[in-house]
Amino acid sequence: MDVISGGVTAAPGFKAASYAAGIKYQGRDDMAMVFSKEPCVCAGTFTSNVVKAACVLWDKDIIDSGSPMHAVVINSGIANACTGNEGFEACIQTAEAVEEALGVPYSAVAVASTGVIGVQLPVDKLVNGVGQLSTILSDTIEAGESASRAIMTTDTVNKQIAVTFTIGGKKVTLGGMSKGSGMIHPNMCTMLGFLTTDLSIEKKLLQKALSEVVTDTFNMITVDGDTSTNDTLLIMANGLAGNPKIDRENDDYITFKEALLYVCENLARRMAADGEGASKLFTARVINARSKEDARVLARSVVSSNLSKAAIYGCDANFGRFLCAMGYSGVDFDQEKVELYFESAVGKLKVFDRGRLPAFDEEKATEIMKASEVIVLIDMNDGKATATAWGCDLTEKYVEINADYRS
Amino acid sequence: MDVISGGVTAAPGFKAASYAAGIKYQGRDDMAMVFSKEPCVCAGTFTSNVVKAACVLWDKDIIDSGSPMHAVVINSGIANACTGNEGFEACIQTAEAVEEALGVPYSAVAVASTGVIGVQLPVDKLVNGVGQLSTILSDTIEAGESASRAIMTTDTVNKQIAVTFTIGGKKVTLGGMSKGSGMIHPNMCTMLGFLTTDLSIEKKLLQKALSEVVTDTFNMITVDGDTSTNDTLLIMANGLAGNPKIDRENDDYITFKEALLYVCENLARRMAADGEGASKLFTARVINARSKEDARVLARSVVSSNLSKAAIYGCDANFGRFLCAMGYSGVDFDQEKVELYFESAVGKLKVFDRGRLPAFDEEKATEIMKASEVIVLIDMNDGKATATAWGCDLTEKYVEINADYRS
Repeated sequence: MDVISGGVTAAPGFKAASYAAGIKYQGRDDMAMVFSKEPCVCAGTFTSNVVKAACVLWDKDIIDSGSPMHAVVINSGIANACTGNEGFEACIQTAEAVEEALGVPYSAVAVASTGVIGVQLPVDKLVNGVGQLSTILSDTIEAGESASRAIMTTDTVNKQIAVTFTIGGKKVTLGGMSKGSGMIHPNMCTMLGFLTTDLSIEKKLLQKALSEVVTDTFNMITVDGDTSTNDTLLIMANGLAGNPKIDRENDDYITFKEALLYVCENLARRMAADGEGASKLFTARVINARSKEDARVLARSVVSSNLSKAAIYGCDANFGRFLCAMGYSGVDFDQEKVELYFESAVGKLKVFDRGRLPAFDEEKATEIMKASEVIVLIDMNDGKATATAWGCDLTEKYVEINADYRS
Repeated sequence: MDVISGGVTAAPGFKAASYAAGIKYQGRDDMAMVFSKEPCVCAGTFTSNVVKAACVLWDKDIIDSGSPMHAVVINSGIANACTGNEGFEACIQTAEAVEEALGVPYSAVAVASTGVIGVQLPVDKLVNGVGQLSTILSDTIEAGESASRAIMTTDTVNKQIAVTFTIGGKKVTLGGMSKGSGMIHPNMCTMLGFLTTDLSIEKKLLQKALSEVVTDTFNMITVDGDTSTNDTLLIMANGLAGNPKIDRENDDYITFKEALLYVCENLARRMAADGEGASKLFTARVINARSKEDARVLARSVVSSNLSKAAIYGCDANFGRFLCAMGYSGVDFDQEKVELYFESAVGKLKVFDRGRLPAFDEEKATEIMKASEVIVLIDMNDGKATATAWGCDLTEKYVEINADYRS
């Protein structure tokens, strides 16, 4: 597998565009479109929030119907959540505008939104935006890059990646972009992710691979414990690579799944590192746990704890907070078995040893925690299961951003 | 029922004292003792965290044994959590020091700690502190007041209250003090609460009343979602009021339980309002829910959400965040039935109406949200159950306090 430059336009047959529709922001692009003339097999995962945005309901219908997908239209100004029938109508009108402009069925057009909840979308601006986007669609790397910028809200950097790998002698490309900071625990500005590939694969297996990979990647990141109404991850596969169609869990499926895992983990880590107000990536790695689920719950609890996050920000080796967060996670364990380390590019230090408190060098600990990625390594000494969760530190800036989000 | 001045020394037979033992802080009292020469029936509730402080284990043993209690010794410097056998030994030595100084069995002495996790207590300072405290015990209002100050950590104000009520023609007094900010979701500095009464009551009924009242009071407050290793609430009843002993759930029991509810709710609200960095009390009141448990979970989810808390801080009527927090609470509901209001001493405003977005005056909303207590009133229109949860806003100051707690 090779990492190449580009994102959603890396795979042959995919075009993208961005446009400043003036939905919320002025002077920057706030709409994007990804388009494939070839019909695409598609799969998706969505927010578990009971309150689902209108666009999530629309996209779920498309995925569930099993019909092919040609396009996705995204806006980064208004979330279209808590907007009732009028909000759902806005999805339909957006999709109809794509049908009119590009001649693909409106039922093959997904829509995604991120931004403020409880405000209706200006449909006229959206429809106009679709018209503009349709005229400037391009398969260049630049077009994919501009789309990855247009979907940002409070993100400070755009996130895209592309890889190539070989299946059945054919080169396959997988690319993607994402924004926001979570899936189980996304922040206000929502996790959105869009992946494109020229792989040939059955829909059922595409969904299976995506769902399994999400469990260990996007579902293991957290910024603030708030699960958005809009979280959406879509993958479109247009089959242009010409590989033997993947129709069972053979070696080709495993090769694809490994590439998908690489792409999703890369995007997920970068989203966590770019969490609102974050100054660093905070990784919790649990090893030797009783079960995979225990390991996941423990790792997520640690990176979700406000007190742990604040300690990471303050470079304070206050390991008790990490043990405390493990303790209320719901997983039963014996602290007399647990070992806890702080680790980064600078070094590694044991700070808790099976119920005992080893003397450790506080200055060394602070040095380790000053790195741009700090890992809390938790050895449960109680089994063989492993999991990693990614989050970020909690800073004054998070509060500044969120105390006055709408104005 | 009448509210009177005082706290843990309000009820006859209870003495208190505080002392600057130099455990963590310099120049302020960091130890306190509450003492009753009469043996007390006692009850308690404790943290649900798997990682329990040594003192929690010690106190649970006393409560479970059914033997009477005479004293509780508290320090506010070091939590004595994650400290293994050495930490448990520190509890025993503290209790033995009380036995030596005051002639009550060491097994009748509870201990409580709050402060930094993962550091051993300086037992010599504790034992010396017990000796000092024993010589200055007093039943004055001032002694209770000083104890309520000595147990503070990051609290900005002390919290105490006392009430009197009549049972069987006898005046009964119930007083208490607390510190910290939570029980299900306490912050680092731990929720500790100590109640004293001269009521005569059977232990089993005292525990029942306490457990039931805690569910609707201390368990409904949150500051940051982190459940401490040390949370402890103890009640001691010495029987000096001379009322007919409460031995069943009769009218006397109900009278007592109402007084207990008043005292616990008062302390709980004040702890939430004094959450770390908080600038205001944030109350979520859920009405007409399907079940009491649904109402509790919804109310707690709303006051626990970082995004809701930041919106309350910013006086931003961003009601979508509140609906979003309800949506991921785990309770199933139909947003087409929900009505949402912001309410405070300044007025009341409907901001979400059964899936529709009523036009509302943003300036009025901001005015309402500037009050020192902001209530989010959530009408589920789906049943008859009600619950209230209390929290606080999330401010830059919370981060400042917790990024560098230990130094």
